[in-house]
Amino acid sequence: MMKEIVLFFAVLVAIVIGQANQPLNVVPYPQQVEMGSCNIPVTSILITSNIESTTFSVSMERYTNLFFPFNNVSNSEENDSSSITLEVTIYSDDETLQFGIDESYNLVIQEESYQIKTATIYGAMRALETFKQLITYNQLDNSYSIQCVSISDYPRYPWRGFMVDTARHFIPKNMILHMIDSLGFSKFNVLHWHIVDAVSFPVESTTYPNLTKGAFSPSAVFSHSDIEEVVAYAKTYGIRVIPEFDIPGHAAAWGIGYPELVATCPDYAANVNNIPLDISNPNTFTFLQNFFSEISPLFFDNYFHTGGDELVTGCWTEDPTILNWMTKMGFSTTDAFQYFENNLDNIMKSINRTKITWNDPIDYGVQLNPETLVQVWSSGSDLQGILNSGYKALVSFAWYLDKQVPDGKIHYEWQDTWQDFYAADPTVNITSNSNNILGGEATMWAEQINQVNWDVRVWPRAIGIAERLWSSQSINTVSLALPRIGQFTCDLSRRGIQSGPLFPDYCPMQDDLVFTMKPNIKLSNSEIKLILNK
Amino acid sequence: MMKEIVLFFAVLVAIVIGQANQPLNVVPYPQQVEMGSCNIPVTSILITSNIESTTFSVSMERYTNLFFPFNNVSNSEENDSSSITLEVTIYSDDETLQFGIDESYNLVIQEESYQIKTATIYGAMRALETFKQLITYNQLDNSYSIQCVSISDYPRYPWRGFMVDTARHFIPKNMILHMIDSLGFSKFNVLHWHIVDAVSFPVESTTYPNLTKGAFSPSAVFSHSDIEEVVAYAKTYGIRVIPEFDIPGHAAAWGIGYPELVATCPDYAANVNNIPLDISNPNTFTFLQNFFSEISPLFFDNYFHTGGDELVTGCWTEDPTILNWMTKMGFSTTDAFQYFENNLDNIMKSINRTKITWNDPIDYGVQLNPETLVQVWSSGSDLQGILNSGYKALVSFAWYLDKQVPDGKIHYEWQDTWQDFYAADPTVNITSNSNNILGGEATMWAEQINQVNWDVRVWPRAIGIAERLWSSQSINTVSLALPRIGQFTCDLSRRGIQSGPLFPDYCPMQDDLVFTMKPNIKLSNSEIKLILNK
Repeated sequence: MMKEIVLFFAVLVAIVIGQANQPLNVVPYPQQVEMGSCNIPVTSILITSNIESTTFSVSMERYTNLFFPFNNVSNSEENDSSSITLEVTIYSDDETLQFGIDESYNLVIQEESYQIKTATIYGAMRALETFKQLITYNQLDNSYSIQCVSISDYPRYPWRGFMVDTARHFIPKNMILHMIDSLGFSKFNVLHWHIVDAVSFPVESTTYPNLTKGAFSPSAVFSHSDIEEVVAYAKTYGIRVIPEFDIPGHAAAWGIGYPELVATCPDYAANVNNIPLDISNPNTFTFLQNFFSEISPLFFDNYFHTGGDELVTGCWTEDPTILNWMTKMGFSTTDAFQYFENNLDNIMKSINRTKITWNDPIDYGVQLNPETLVQVWSSGSDLQGILNSGYKALVSFAWYLDKQVPDGKIHYEWQDTWQDFYAADPTVNITSNSNNILGGEATMWAEQINQVNWDVRVWPRAIGIAERLWSSQSINTVSLALPRIGQFTCDLSRRGIQSGPLFPDYCPMQDDLVFTMKPNIKLSNSEIKLILNK
Repeated sequence: MMKEIVLFFAVLVAIVIGQANQPLNVVPYPQQVEMGSCNIPVTSILITSNIESTTFSVSMERYTNLFFPFNNVSNSEENDSSSITLEVTIYSDDETLQFGIDESYNLVIQEESYQIKTATIYGAMRALETFKQLITYNQLDNSYSIQCVSISDYPRYPWRGFMVDTARHFIPKNMILHMIDSLGFSKFNVLHWHIVDAVSFPVESTTYPNLTKGAFSPSAVFSHSDIEEVVAYAKTYGIRVIPEFDIPGHAAAWGIGYPELVATCPDYAANVNNIPLDISNPNTFTFLQNFFSEISPLFFDNYFHTGGDELVTGCWTEDPTILNWMTKMGFSTTDAFQYFENNLDNIMKSINRTKITWNDPIDYGVQLNPETLVQVWSSGSDLQGILNSGYKALVSFAWYLDKQVPDGKIHYEWQDTWQDFYAADPTVNITSNSNNILGGEATMWAEQINQVNWDVRVWPRAIGIAERLWSSQSINTVSLALPRIGQFTCDLSRRGIQSGPLFPDYCPMQDDLVFTMKPNIKLSNSEIKLILNK
């Protein structure tokens, strides 16, 4: 009996403490939360804004359509006590979307007053997402209510990215737009578009039209207008789109249309990933200059990713032309790689972009331009050295969504790998210069991913990464995050994102969600009887 | 130069050998294949059958609708040289579907002759699936052709099952029917329906209506007519449906509506999985007798699964009523478990069913009725002893689809765990009585699964299991299976199954597939321009 009492109170105390620590059901958890004591029934919501903005009006329309998944509640301005007006006050009408813009917001929900105050339309978008999550659906009586609360929020890291690979498999444009929906809902703010690779080149070029001979098919190509639509759509979530053209390695697909661009090395050719650019030919750099001058205006972001990973220098030295050139120049392979990156810097300067590379050039001994942003993927142990060298960095090494075992830990349940992502704080083992970490990126390499399975591979596991990048470092307790993420993944499902559950529960969904499966034949009652009776 | 020549021929020889071993692009690989030399263009296919069968006519209609995913080819009987008639000859019109029915077929495709010959409608269904996979789609000119071939096929194992859990998460009926589509396409022939568990009881009962108080919600319940529709629908794929009511452990949900049915043990109650039935009360057995008498007629299969796994006997001995009863009866916990299984045998006899249990009762020292079919889940090392004891067995231990690491092996890519499933031959480490292995079952425990993510978690990985159970033991080379599975997973996608890719490729899909994602707002061209210009 005593044992029961002690156990009961221990559980009660844990619940109380838990709720005191993270009492609000929002993901990512906001920086400052003061719970109100009211809970307001609501049947319709009108969003008002003090500024005119096409970009923000898309966001307002989007969230208005998402607030009430289960019934056609008319969002009219009737003077109905269950109709509320959400007033958004935005201090600046400057819609510049670049690294470091202000995404902070205040959100105050009280009786008779529903207010968002923010510096930019992007902070307002973050606030609308949080507000959406405050609306609770009660299945028992098909009603909605909103929690009273006062929130002051801003992201811990200004760079919260997600890398999408459209080269290992082509991803239709509409699927990319759908991906952006899911990223925006989770407050990611960078789409790193790994758009070409060794396996395929799906980008239309007016300067070099034969590049798309490297696409899987003429129907597997992104036109300029496709790219513009993606960039514009991402902006309606405050998501910056940064292209990656991964060079000098991983370049085989460039050579399908333009064989002179790439090295020739039969010993390595069995693996298409081994073929790099031929950097001995100055025409290669002319090509890159012209091509990047054509493509970069499609992306307004100041950053431009040129890859630099997994260069197979043995292919350079096997190609007699390149070997001769290196000998003539007195170049080691490191010198050749350095030469390449130096030339790339000139190109970046001419198109007014800041370069991002993976950490590989540094591993090779290349001295990168100090302005280079370095994306650290191969190991966490490289990170401290990179930071100490003065580079700004992004962390990715712990956030690989393709891996069976992302972090060395083995869980019983596959989906529990979200906890590994959640635990991977960017500052783990970093004792100095952590301020050089701008943020990080999840990566979804697509060797085994296409539009069919992207959602389910990514969600809900990437929510661990989303919260790690936005919320305070101290928001890191799995048992407290779990109920919030469990609710958020159900919410995402109702928004048409295929995000599955993390524990036994019941998430009623609308009948007309896109992914609602049906049998390929609908049996009539008489057919059922006939079939069962034979 | 010499090195190049050697390499070239080595690759050529490998390709030729590979093609000689598994030249046909069919999954699971048939027992006997003789490739023809023709390839026949086709624009329409009419299936004829020598028998009248409602069940088989559903299958014929289904496959007719699947043959041409990309254009509306009318399946008329026009005397068009690209119109073919597929003649199905079925020797028996007996539609009995029980363990061990004949699923063999001959399929011969030649110029002017397209013939299926088979003993039962179920062999004919297997043949139609294989025939579907012989139709190649050529994207370049939007045409179809059929490979000439002579196939003689039958399954290695007569029991090829898939366990679906609808208790950890409720699964809507239409999703279960969709699951059956995917299982039928892969030649599984048993749906093991783990229909209730500790967490929820989603089955309607007219005898004991309060049982559904244990459901997640009144809307999360299977009615009798739902169950009949599932059973009838599965029959149109030759899939037997076997219910599992997992007892005496895992029984908490029975107790929500009928508290007297379950044990009371506060020390264990924190984990709902710990609560077993109260077997000290004879009314419990009356309850089971009545309930199973109500439910079993909904399933025509001769087998009935009563679970028996993970019994927490400490809960029995903590409950004073049960402890007193055990003392009075002179029962150890093993004796009590034995008593339970003996009573269950009487019930099974009265409803004319053969019992299936997991291996746990044997681990406890229970002497099961020798007719019991034992499903071995906890370890492969148990299997030999179970076979030697004379039991028939099903293997599941290597085929758990929920596990991050199903087989101890760690791959880089998550989806490569299909290879672990593929390698897990049921006879591995079995030196005697392997003929007692009736087959096996993949299991998809649903703690982190609902209708949103089931397809993607299961496919294409479960294809490894499907082929392991159907094809010859010698069909076990990953490099030869990979291209076939790569093609089959694309085929499945086009049939509306969310089965992703295993390597970089391009699988064009129809625009109107169920799971075709779109953005939640469609931007107009003028909106795009306005957004980008600010």
